[in-house]
Amino acid sequence: MKILVAGGAGFIGSNLIDLFLEKGNEVVCIDNYFIGTKKNIEHLVNDPNFVMYEQNLCDLEAVSQIFAKENIEYVVHLAANSDIQASAKNPIIEYQNTYTTTFNLLECMRLHDVKKMFFASTSAVYGEKTDELLTETTADLCPVSYYGACKLGSEALISAYSHMNDLEVLIFRFPNVIGPRLTHGVIFDFIKKLESDDSQLEILGDGTQCKPYIYVLDLVEAIVRFMNTETKGVTLYNLGVEGATTVTRIADIICEKMGLCNVKYNYTGGNIGWKGDVPRFQYDLSKIYATGWRASCNSDEAVAKTVEVVLHSRE
Amino acid sequence: MKILVAGGAGFIGSNLIDLFLEKGNEVVCIDNYFIGTKKNIEHLVNDPNFVMYEQNLCDLEAVSQIFAKENIEYVVHLAANSDIQASAKNPIIEYQNTYTTTFNLLECMRLHDVKKMFFASTSAVYGEKTDELLTETTADLCPVSYYGACKLGSEALISAYSHMNDLEVLIFRFPNVIGPRLTHGVIFDFIKKLESDDSQLEILGDGTQCKPYIYVLDLVEAIVRFMNTETKGVTLYNLGVEGATTVTRIADIICEKMGLCNVKYNYTGGNIGWKGDVPRFQYDLSKIYATGWRASCNSDEAVAKTVEVVLHSRE
Repeated sequence: MKILVAGGAGFIGSNLIDLFLEKGNEVVCIDNYFIGTKKNIEHLVNDPNFVMYEQNLCDLEAVSQIFAKENIEYVVHLAANSDIQASAKNPIIEYQNTYTTTFNLLECMRLHDVKKMFFASTSAVYGEKTDELLTETTADLCPVSYYGACKLGSEALISAYSHMNDLEVLIFRFPNVIGPRLTHGVIFDFIKKLESDDSQLEILGDGTQCKPYIYVLDLVEAIVRFMNTETKGVTLYNLGVEGATTVTRIADIICEKMGLCNVKYNYTGGNIGWKGDVPRFQYDLSKIYATGWRASCNSDEAVAKTVEVVLHSRE
Repeated sequence: MKILVAGGAGFIGSNLIDLFLEKGNEVVCIDNYFIGTKKNIEHLVNDPNFVMYEQNLCDLEAVSQIFAKENIEYVVHLAANSDIQASAKNPIIEYQNTYTTTFNLLECMRLHDVKKMFFASTSAVYGEKTDELLTETTADLCPVSYYGACKLGSEALISAYSHMNDLEVLIFRFPNVIGPRLTHGVIFDFIKKLESDDSQLEILGDGTQCKPYIYVLDLVEAIVRFMNTETKGVTLYNLGVEGATTVTRIADIICEKMGLCNVKYNYTGGNIGWKGDVPRFQYDLSKIYATGWRASCNSDEAVAKTVEVVLHSRE
């Protein structure tokens, strides 16, 4: 199958492309290296089944030309701004990189008659629903970040495009995703801080923020598995893992793996890390578990594996 | 109060501006005359409390300059593509005129510290939920039109902007709105068709499509009334009327008002008028009724009054 991976040079995208190629697919990657990196895909450049376009997805005409040239059968849309703290200061990043990318890909699918898509959505669409188990049909979605808003708007676009053009779309609402090639986020930040000063660690909030973390290789395997299931219209799953990990527990795991004792934690205080952050959430995973799928790592295990991988990559 | 009315030269906007001015407000109108018309506001051009900018809201920089110049206290956002059949063929109309207008207005509010907004949303955000009473917290919103998708995406943006910038936003999800200055839709179409041939009438679908119609003067009075209520964050209401009117009933009312007998109805068949149309819906109005508000006309009365007004305006 010839698969377009939008945002394919990113952390998740590059791991997914590795798996697509391993399974014998052809991959067309589009990325503008806004967050993705050349390093993430440098091992693929000589693979005959891989073609790379350095292209901003906000340019509809240019993207349409790629669709005209390549015979795309499946669109995997991972292109988005994934750095919520950055867009809090400049929401246009989300309007362009998270929402407009979705619109343009759907519009190209309409114009070039491509019928299948995978879309990476997020727990951020729910907003601050900290005291309930989140199901796929939880009502009253009130995103608190521009990122969550543009992902929810993207889901709405997908609903209409699917209805109007008979698209078959698989949506996963991701939890926090971590693992090899991670570029930002709490694990990355803590390691960098401790490398420069291993006597103390500044922790945003009060450290009780608690979220489920999925290991990226579990995630990409789930995408490939579910992409091969025949469905109609839009199929939505909360994708998650067992357990959840507090920010303080992440700090503990990192200190342990770095062999550091007696690091002083300096909490900035408050129950959120920054404005627009959702301090904790937990998915009801009944729907995806009913298919038989399970992640191989729980949240704490995913954190521990990721810390090892990140430390190893920085040696 | 100095109120910006975005889309103020349109059917609803111009009726609302009349009421704002009558109540002693200053009005800044922005419209690009894409659907709105100069005729709708020509009676206002010499009013010292009215200023008009012919401007596309998709140009963020230009709109920001208007915010910098005028001391806006309240933003009323009615700018959108309201012709769903038109955008079915060209979804970019919705991306620009319905979604980007919202993003740019919210971004200007953030940049220029304006805290209050009214937003015109729509029953189209629900999608095809034909067999349930729609409440403000109905789950699983799956819009079937690009219009509904971009309105739902706009609501999501408002949620995030409100949280991040402490905005106070009132949202009404409108039903079908009709009355003076109507520019398109079933009433308008039927009258035009019967004026050119009064022996027969083509009716899209099977005529059983059934929706609540609100009279525009009831709607604008509701907006003014609720704008003056102190609230926090985002407040959402389904705005509706008693009853609903089938397409065949609309044809009957028009024929009666035009004094036509024995008009042959030619149904195109099927239970929808066009792809992306929602054939029927009904609101649960408990939330707005709990405030004491009621529309003065029910749906059939709104249709009858509108037919009279439209016929009169075409004499």
